[in-house]
Amino acid sequence: MSGIVVQSFERTALADITALAEFGVATIHEAQGRKGLLACYMRPIYAGAQAAGNAVTVSVGPGDNWMIHVAVEQCREGDVLVVAPTSPCDNGYFGELLACSLKSRGVRGLVIEAGCRDVKALSEMNFPVWSRAVSAQGTVKESLGDVNLPLVCAGQLIHPGDVVVADDDGVVIVARGEVRAVTAKSREREEKEARNREQLSNGQLGIDIYGMRAKLKEKGLRYVASADELKAK
Amino acid sequence: MSGIVVQSFERTALADITALAEFGVATIHEAQGRKGLLACYMRPIYAGAQAAGNAVTVSVGPGDNWMIHVAVEQCREGDVLVVAPTSPCDNGYFGELLACSLKSRGVRGLVIEAGCRDVKALSEMNFPVWSRAVSAQGTVKESLGDVNLPLVCAGQLIHPGDVVVADDDGVVIVARGEVRAVTAKSREREEKEARNREQLSNGQLGIDIYGMRAKLKEKGLRYVASADELKAK
Amino acid sequence: MSGIVVQSFERTALADITALAEFGVATIHEAQGRKGLLACYMRPIYAGAQAAGNAVTVSVGPGDNWMIHVAVEQCREGDVLVVAPTSPCDNGYFGELLACSLKSRGVRGLVIEAGCRDVKALSEMNFPVWSRAVSAQGTVKESLGDVNLPLVCAGQLIHPGDVVVADDDGVVIVARGEVRAVTAKSREREEKEARNREQLSNGQLGIDIYGMRAKLKEKGLRYVASADELKAK
Amino acid sequence: MSGIVVQSFERTALADITALAEFGVATIHEAQGRKGLLACYMRPIYAGAQAAGNAVTVSVGPGDNWMIHVAVEQCREGDVLVVAPTSPCDNGYFGELLACSLKSRGVRGLVIEAGCRDVKALSEMNFPVWSRAVSAQGTVKESLGDVNLPLVCAGQLIHPGDVVVADDDGVVIVARGEVRAVTAKSREREEKEARNREQLSNGQLGIDIYGMRAKLKEKGLRYVASADELKAK
Amino acid sequence: MSGIVVQSFERTALADITALAEFGVATIHEAQGRKGLLACYMRPIYAGAQAAGNAVTVSVGPGDNWMIHVAVEQCREGDVLVVAPTSPCDNGYFGELLACSLKSRGVRGLVIEAGCRDVKALSEMNFPVWSRAVSAQGTVKESLGDVNLPLVCAGQLIHPGDVVVADDDGVVIVARGEVRAVTAKSREREEKEARNREQLSNGQLGIDIYGMRAKLKEKGLRYVASADELKAK
Amino acid sequence: MSGIVVQSFERTALADITALAEFGVATIHEAQGRKGLLACYMRPIYAGAQAAGNAVTVSVGPGDNWMIHVAVEQCREGDVLVVAPTSPCDNGYFGELLACSLKSRGVRGLVIEAGCRDVKALSEMNFPVWSRAVSAQGTVKESLGDVNLPLVCAGQLIHPGDVVVADDDGVVIVARGEVRAVTAKSREREEKEARNREQLSNGQLGIDIYGMRAKLKEKGLRYVASADELKAK
Repeated sequence: MSGIVVQSFERTALADITALAEFGVATIHEAQGRKGLLACYMRPIYAGAQAAGNAVTVSVGPGDNWMIHVAVEQCREGDVLVVAPTSPCDNGYFGELLACSLKSRGVRGLVIEAGCRDVKALSEMNFPVWSRAVSAQGTVKESLGDVNLPLVCAGQLIHPGDVVVADDDGVVIVARGEVRAVTAKSREREEKEARNREQLSNGQLGIDIYGMRAKLKEKGLRYVASADELKAK
Repeated sequence: MSGIVVQSFERTALADITALAEFGVATIHEAQGRKGLLACYMRPIYAGAQAAGNAVTVSVGPGDNWMIHVAVEQCREGDVLVVAPTSPCDNGYFGELLACSLKSRGVRGLVIEAGCRDVKALSEMNFPVWSRAVSAQGTVKESLGDVNLPLVCAGQLIHPGDVVVADDDGVVIVARGEVRAVTAKSREREEKEARNREQLSNGQLGIDIYGMRAKLKEKGLRYVASADELKAK
Repeated sequence: MSGIVVQSFERTALADITALAEFGVATIHEAQGRKGLLACYMRPIYAGAQAAGNAVTVSVGPGDNWMIHVAVEQCREGDVLVVAPTSPCDNGYFGELLACSLKSRGVRGLVIEAGCRDVKALSEMNFPVWSRAVSAQGTVKESLGDVNLPLVCAGQLIHPGDVVVADDDGVVIVARGEVRAVTAKSREREEKEARNREQLSNGQLGIDIYGMRAKLKEKGLRYVASADELKAK
Repeated sequence: MSGIVVQSFERTALADITALAEFGVATIHEAQGRKGLLACYMRPIYAGAQAAGNAVTVSVGPGDNWMIHVAVEQCREGDVLVVAPTSPCDNGYFGELLACSLKSRGVRGLVIEAGCRDVKALSEMNFPVWSRAVSAQGTVKESLGDVNLPLVCAGQLIHPGDVVVADDDGVVIVARGEVRAVTAKSREREEKEARNREQLSNGQLGIDIYGMRAKLKEKGLRYVASADELKAK
Repeated sequence: MSGIVVQSFERTALADITALAEFGVATIHEAQGRKGLLACYMRPIYAGAQAAGNAVTVSVGPGDNWMIHVAVEQCREGDVLVVAPTSPCDNGYFGELLACSLKSRGVRGLVIEAGCRDVKALSEMNFPVWSRAVSAQGTVKESLGDVNLPLVCAGQLIHPGDVVVADDDGVVIVARGEVRAVTAKSREREEKEARNREQLSNGQLGIDIYGMRAKLKEKGLRYVASADELKAK
Repeated sequence: MSGIVVQSFERTALADITALAEFGVATIHEAQGRKGLLACYMRPIYAGAQAAGNAVTVSVGPGDNWMIHVAVEQCREGDVLVVAPTSPCDNGYFGELLACSLKSRGVRGLVIEAGCRDVKALSEMNFPVWSRAVSAQGTVKESLGDVNLPLVCAGQLIHPGDVVVADDDGVVIVARGEVRAVTAKSREREEKEARNREQLSNGQLGIDIYGMRAKLKEKGLRYVASADELKAK
């Protein structure tokens, strides 16, 4: 089924994405039950990069970025492009020109399980990319792939219209139907963490706040005054 | 012997650590005879990170950060937490909340042979971390490990109370009893390097300053005017 | 033929290098037909690093930087040192002192398929390095290698006098005799890209500008309104 | 949705699997349009390993094999267990005892994106395993995962009841509904290849048999008598 | 303290090693509380390799095997040589000649966190090696290291006289004083496993034999008839 | 200069190759001064694989094996095909059919810095391959590369007509003009090693045979009776 471009799919409302994007990747990942996180080799090309948007998915051949050119037309305001090759490749599939094109359509960033290039220009134009590599190696335009079919990228299944959130900690996917629920849980988590942050910053101990002492004892944790005590045994 | 927390061990005086920390990781590593360096995959989460302190050691299970919570209570002013999993794991064991907790106790940084998260927050609060990965992947709290037993982290044996020095070049461990001697040798080295730095910046050649020409000749080094000379032979 | 120092070879005129260095690594790599790019694990030690110059090549033993000291004398204004070990090694072969020495001779940077150290000092003195690793691990001075013989570094054959251009995207080599031609082609490419950049930034589509639609259709690309349409089949 | 065991799903008839398994992984992968192949770091623990069966999918925590024990009960004659951890882990999740248990239920092999152990025993009992690592490192039994939910393993989405075929070349997944069609196409391919094999073994050239000369010429392939001819230009 | 050869240390009686070596690496690792296992990149150079003996430890420089030659003299009947470089290196430190030398002294094998060569000859003479790489790359003889000082190899601290057991599953270290206790526990474990092996081979389920059902239920494991049931919710 | 097929180049006489191939990769690598060895990730697909022949070099695009088909015609009795992609790729570029074709022309094996497939068939037909990966992932036929131009493969520069020798230890290249000289030096080395092998097998020590004791002492090697002696200091 290679060579398919699906032109229409349901997106999440941008207002809902904005609400979700108040929270960072780590918080969202926890809030939705520790699922949806891309492999940690997906790194931002510059520190402080942040993006959130509707996933437009693209599969590409190794060393072939033709389908990214095809995908541009399918993008709209608030999208994030998600690209994965059909076999592993670190070539520089993406650079400044494609970024100009995507930016003109309101696309907020790129997640690509491959390489990207023009890092300096992308940084200056503030177009964030999360990639597996930086590489100037160019690509050809010979082979078809698919746009907006479900895609496995960096270990996660992503559907077009899923919400992508990415920052310095990595990239997380929230299923389209779960955005509001995850936002709510993220908020709860953040509020709880804010309380804990204050307590912990004041020197209270997590093992007390979280009530861990009993369970630790039950598991057999043993406190000894010094290492000598162990040798004595 | 899993599930042990050693509560007391000898630390190095903070004044001695301050004196040692004038020098960088590369200098200290050389000064103590090229030992104690952690593997070079241990990288700071932000440029310019620096820390020096007494090691508090923690072993943790794969994907399980419970013992870090246990270790907090054992930390005091001037410590650096050193964490290694019992089998390789890149999960994000450590984030903002634990950093708040450690910071409130005067802990100066974290060295972890695993992943950390909340990179942005940690950078903003200036809590330095040297880790093998950045990952938002959370951990469970189910399995015991040990606190303040000798630990192998990133290829080095570390005892609680050893001094950890870390900067952009990596992480080096100085054995507790050797801190003053290593400081003295680092100073000697730095002074010698300062002289060399000036000479070299003025265009003098290292092979002259270091007197290498004779030994190079003895080893058989041969200067030829051009590559043509080689082909002629 | 180990233990050879070739003292003289043809260099490219610095004015020609200056002209070439207007263009980035990605552009040059494309302009010369996608050859000469070093492997993408060669990364700058700080963001924004840039260098261009004549290659002085050095082969070194694993964990042995003696030949770098030997090579300094062979360097002159506008050179870039290119170093590769005879077997893979991530040790810190290069640091501040060697950088002082090279800088005093007008050397513009280092490309090393191994480790470097003193990252902070190198950043402050603005001496750019592209390396495979950062490591404080020192090296010995026991074994000979060669200076200014052809060298394979990070997957590319490099001759002394080839031009090295390096930036955030990596490192590319331009053969000595091809510098002006590659500069001309880079300029053409840049001019064409400037036009495209404007069109793309204005929202025109690459698949139209580049005339891809016909070829895509011929290859069998198929547009479907929605995923339901696929299931229906 | 962690902690779910789906007890019933549609399987492919074993006769259909037998028919498919006449063909190797490479053939099947080609026949179904080059999809469904697991990442090539999934290697058999002994040469000549072969298996084909219905996928029973299991997600497990890092360093935690509890759900494999849970999954055994869900297996039946002709199944292949497919296991992936929620974050990367090379521990030895699987060994002789679990193999005995699975074998008694007619399970034909294991595909695990993690480590396995007892390689000698598994080889002797002829229970094939494709894994990312061999490791004696044990696992705990503390955390829930899921059985028979869709699972991403080594870069591929796998549904329970998909057919797994594995041999020395790796592991390929065939979607449940496509088994017969893929078998037919594999047979066609094999028959065509048998003819080609004979022609090629007799010295006929692929570029003639496959009619490539015209397309090569059109692309600009140029034959030169010798390298000197190139220099002359 | 580089350049030290410790000539005498306590070894474990060979009879005790023989008793321990009845058990495989995985069993011993479990029996001693899951410690002492070397990193899983340490692989045997041929299938079926097995060895057990007293550790003689050797540290070597990168690309320098001089200290292995020094260490031979310190070996005796029943030893296993354990070698680690001071910085990572995959060179072929060890080949047929050193194996002849070690074999003549009754040494049972080599564990080296680096490369080895002459794989065919070593296989034919049945001298087992566990290494990180196979490489024909030679080494120099210029730098000192240490023999029979404690050594970190592949992530584990090893003392001379510790017992090394190695097989297809990897390499495990048993502390000298713990050999008999670990042997006893290994035997217990093996006997228990023998009973379980029979039960499991007869089709009894581990979750019943090990009494896991209650704890699984308590953790919230939920059985559903089919995936449809989940969607219904 | 992509899209070039050089049809004629000087080969080494097969008798000379036969003479060289008496020796293994490690011996030849040493005999020619430790140069010409391919990176150690190039591994044979089956144990005991051996080949020696004239290099026919092929550059290919990532995921594109078209040029291998083109290269077949350029091969003759006694050749070894050497293939490297223009950017890293682990796809299965080569399988049974190409092997049939090459075998019919007397080609002795393949060295490919990428993946190969049909491992079982290749093993059965005894066609040896040294590759970076095994992968069933297919390739396209869209892009040109070159045949019989100099090629960097796995870190080494290889000219067509250089001699390739490969075995369980890896792959080494001998320059065309140096084959007889390297054969002679390999023979010398082997004869010397045969003498050493006997002495070492009889229990004589290398540090005596090779006269190392004086140099070791000069470097400062120090023998201590036991570790206690060190602590005493």
